[in-house]
Amino acid sequence: MFAPLQNDVFLKALLREPVPRTPVWMMRQAGRYLPEYRATRAKAGSFLNLCMNPDYACEVTLQPLERYPLDAAIVFSDILTIPHAFKLGLAFETGEGPTLERPVRSLADVKRLASLDPEQDLRYVMDAVRLIRRELAGRVPLIGFAGSPWTVATYMVEGGTSKTFAKIKGMLYSEPQTLHLLLRKLAAATTDYLNAQIRAGAQAVMLFDTWGGVLTPSAYHEFSLAYMSEIIGQLLKEHDGRRVPSIVFTKGGGAWLTQTAASGADALGVDWCTDLARARQLAGELVGLQGNLDPSVLYASPDVIRSEVGRVLASYGHGSGHVFNLGHGIHPDVNPEHAGAMIEAVHALSPQYHR
Amino acid sequence: MFAPLQNDVFLKALLREPVPRTPVWMMRQAGRYLPEYRATRAKAGSFLNLCMNPDYACEVTLQPLERYPLDAAIVFSDILTIPHAFKLGLAFETGEGPTLERPVRSLADVKRLASLDPEQDLRYVMDAVRLIRRELAGRVPLIGFAGSPWTVATYMVEGGTSKTFAKIKGMLYSEPQTLHLLLRKLAAATTDYLNAQIRAGAQAVMLFDTWGGVLTPSAYHEFSLAYMSEIIGQLLKEHDGRRVPSIVFTKGGGAWLTQTAASGADALGVDWCTDLARARQLAGELVGLQGNLDPSVLYASPDVIRSEVGRVLASYGHGSGHVFNLGHGIHPDVNPEHAGAMIEAVHALSPQYHR
Repeated sequence: MFAPLQNDVFLKALLREPVPRTPVWMMRQAGRYLPEYRATRAKAGSFLNLCMNPDYACEVTLQPLERYPLDAAIVFSDILTIPHAFKLGLAFETGEGPTLERPVRSLADVKRLASLDPEQDLRYVMDAVRLIRRELAGRVPLIGFAGSPWTVATYMVEGGTSKTFAKIKGMLYSEPQTLHLLLRKLAAATTDYLNAQIRAGAQAVMLFDTWGGVLTPSAYHEFSLAYMSEIIGQLLKEHDGRRVPSIVFTKGGGAWLTQTAASGADALGVDWCTDLARARQLAGELVGLQGNLDPSVLYASPDVIRSEVGRVLASYGHGSGHVFNLGHGIHPDVNPEHAGAMIEAVHALSPQYHR
Repeated sequence: MFAPLQNDVFLKALLREPVPRTPVWMMRQAGRYLPEYRATRAKAGSFLNLCMNPDYACEVTLQPLERYPLDAAIVFSDILTIPHAFKLGLAFETGEGPTLERPVRSLADVKRLASLDPEQDLRYVMDAVRLIRRELAGRVPLIGFAGSPWTVATYMVEGGTSKTFAKIKGMLYSEPQTLHLLLRKLAAATTDYLNAQIRAGAQAVMLFDTWGGVLTPSAYHEFSLAYMSEIIGQLLKEHDGRRVPSIVFTKGGGAWLTQTAASGADALGVDWCTDLARARQLAGELVGLQGNLDPSVLYASPDVIRSEVGRVLASYGHGSGHVFNLGHGIHPDVNPEHAGAMIEAVHALSPQYHR
């Protein structure tokens, strides 16, 4: 149904199969740092329209691939599509981050959340996945994604972004059963959502646990990791005759890599605060690793960028199992040429680690 | 000159000497969660006036001691007193965080920074320390503090708070020598500043490395820890016939406790994302540990607070070397009775660990 895949270094590296060089992509590679993205965003009128219109979503997904020799595309979407489908009144105010008009604060609120049918309620995402797969024409694999239940729940309970997570932590410590019910519902919805993305054409999937790192170790285990493991356990492992690798990324979760590696995911995202050599020591026999250049390195000159890329590659060392990426999304004020210098450096410097 | 100290459990625990129970204090214990603090703050007119007026600073420093059986006082001040003394145009806008009108962005800017004489340029802090020591009348020891050079530098280079640290990271990666010169100047000023606080009456000192956790492991070592170690090595170890213990707290630095323990500090602050048992295993033979209740636990009910206090105490386990604290400053919207419940629980539950 789709054209055969021409470049599978990304999928192979996630599964720790031999590759000729280290694959590379960037979190938020379709984003504000690109003038062509800003142009499409202006046409779309709002961030939400951009996400919900498959033509626009496809357009911005492909933009970074026109500029750079990237090894993967990631469907343009947002981790808040699920609360949006729950009809909680999602809006993205300029410069304010997302807000939810009707936050989920009580057991009654949680019980009221209906179950979702992703092909109906998140149809626009599936349409975008199908369209992007067609337009990609097999150039590189397409990644589908979702937020982790804990991370999505923080927005649903807080009603937006937060610094202290007062409301959801109040719930976690005072009414853990309410939070568990919410997380169970989110885990079920997320499982169906990711499997629907796989059926629509996503060739790998990633769980973004952006806020797992604000938890204590035991709360991380109970309220974030447990639900990610539940999801991973129920994902389609194969589709269209090919393994569909999964990636889990807990930002700020460097101390828990061994536990996160036991989630069943094929690979872990690693932020820049963790040494990749150490991460490999701890978890590299179980999982592939994706990361972890400090996104702020891209503020430096191309020469410095190249040498920092070299450090990250050397830190992982020889052999497969490494996907090069930033340790977090690319900053919106980065010069696109600097992103190009990073990608070029990965192409130039990585083959020596795969001989 | 000052009244003899009546309660030294805090100082002893930092030095891992036997104590009958675990001492307790709270970061930002003199703060906005207290109505009496808000009243003094209103009288003072601005946050900066509150810091710079020794009478007001003394008043708010003592307020939490009137309410709670705390084992230490900490001089009311701010980590930005040094940039303020450098005359960089410090202001605290309501709800905006601190801003510096004249940020430090170039080698010329750094070279222009004059050296400081804390008894002159930060006289108001020393006056506050002397006044608080007198008013404390030996009830509990007084902690002096400063920001780490890296943390203070982030504000000086960014011109305020930051999410991405674009400017200082640009400097770190592009012009490391400029940043090193700035950090050397800050380390020298901070050493003199802390020693002046000790001479004025501070009985322990703490370095707050609030932003060390945004660095890569190697950058943390080179740009933050190295300068903290330099300061620690030059601090007065004794004053008035008594050891003056030092505490280093890198927020988000849980992965580097072993390295931070080698800084020469007597104790390390530990945030709530690190398991205290693990921290003790890694560093407990070298240093005392201070922490690490999730500040958001105080949003829960007193019953839950007590049980979470129990978990933290059990996690450190038997023997001295633990100072109970939150893993970060107390949130401004916490109910003061909940802080009381935490402190009471430490008094009630900790003696069993010191038999």
